[in-house]
Amino acid sequence: MTDAVNLARKLSLFDEHWSPRGVASFNGHDVMVVKVQGEFTWHSHADTDDFFLVLKGEIEIRMRDRTVTLREGEMFVVPKGVEHCPFAREEAHLLLIEPAGTPNTGNPETAAVRQSV
Amino acid sequence: MTDAVNLARKLSLFDEHWSPRGVASFNGHDVMVVKVQGEFTWHSHADTDDFFLVLKGEIEIRMRDRTVTLREGEMFVVPKGVEHCPFAREEAHLLLIEPAGTPNTGNPETAAVRQSV
Repeated sequence: MTDAVNLARKLSLFDEHWSPRGVASFNGHDVMVVKVQGEFTWHSHADTDDFFLVLKGEIEIRMRDRTVTLREGEMFVVPKGVEHCPFAREEAHLLLIEPAGTPNTGNPETAAVRQSV
Repeated sequence: MTDAVNLARKLSLFDEHWSPRGVASFNGHDVMVVKVQGEFTWHSHADTDDFFLVLKGEIEIRMRDRTVTLREGEMFVVPKGVEHCPFAREEAHLLLIEPAGTPNTGNPETAAVRQSV
């Protein structure tokens, strides 16, 4: 990365839901933007926390014992090992940070291919 | 952290410049908000990249060979070891991510005390 990363512009370059696109690297992590709508799959990551920041819209992060609602400008970290299921009633745009190569479903066999944009 | 973190609300709780406040932990890193204005000190971090996301306003990240301007919704990662000097003509609000305990000046003797908010 040699210049500023404009997150809205990066998000304008694709339409697919639940398919994170890498925009930068940070200490061995991928910084990604993603468009989401509807319900994702229940999953957890045994080895990493999961960072969510809402850039546009609103999401719920459903966990087994509670649900956290995130609106634009709000963030949440799902601790490693905690099962969660993101949900968005309408399209929402997120910034995600995960260790490079982390499968977004928690399972390499069902994970979205990691792409950059 | 047990609930959503509203970054604007966290920023409303203090006025001091160049004094990052922790709002969450993520994989051994502190996620922080900070208000900045004017010129910081030239410094580098030998062991970590430096993550900047502008939440409000505009900053320059001055490096020895170039300057990157960041506006609201734009981010940049200063690679570890690269000397940089953040600058903001008017007050700007940032999200920062650094390994827990990283001195913000690159030097423990001159660093701001790490506080949470």
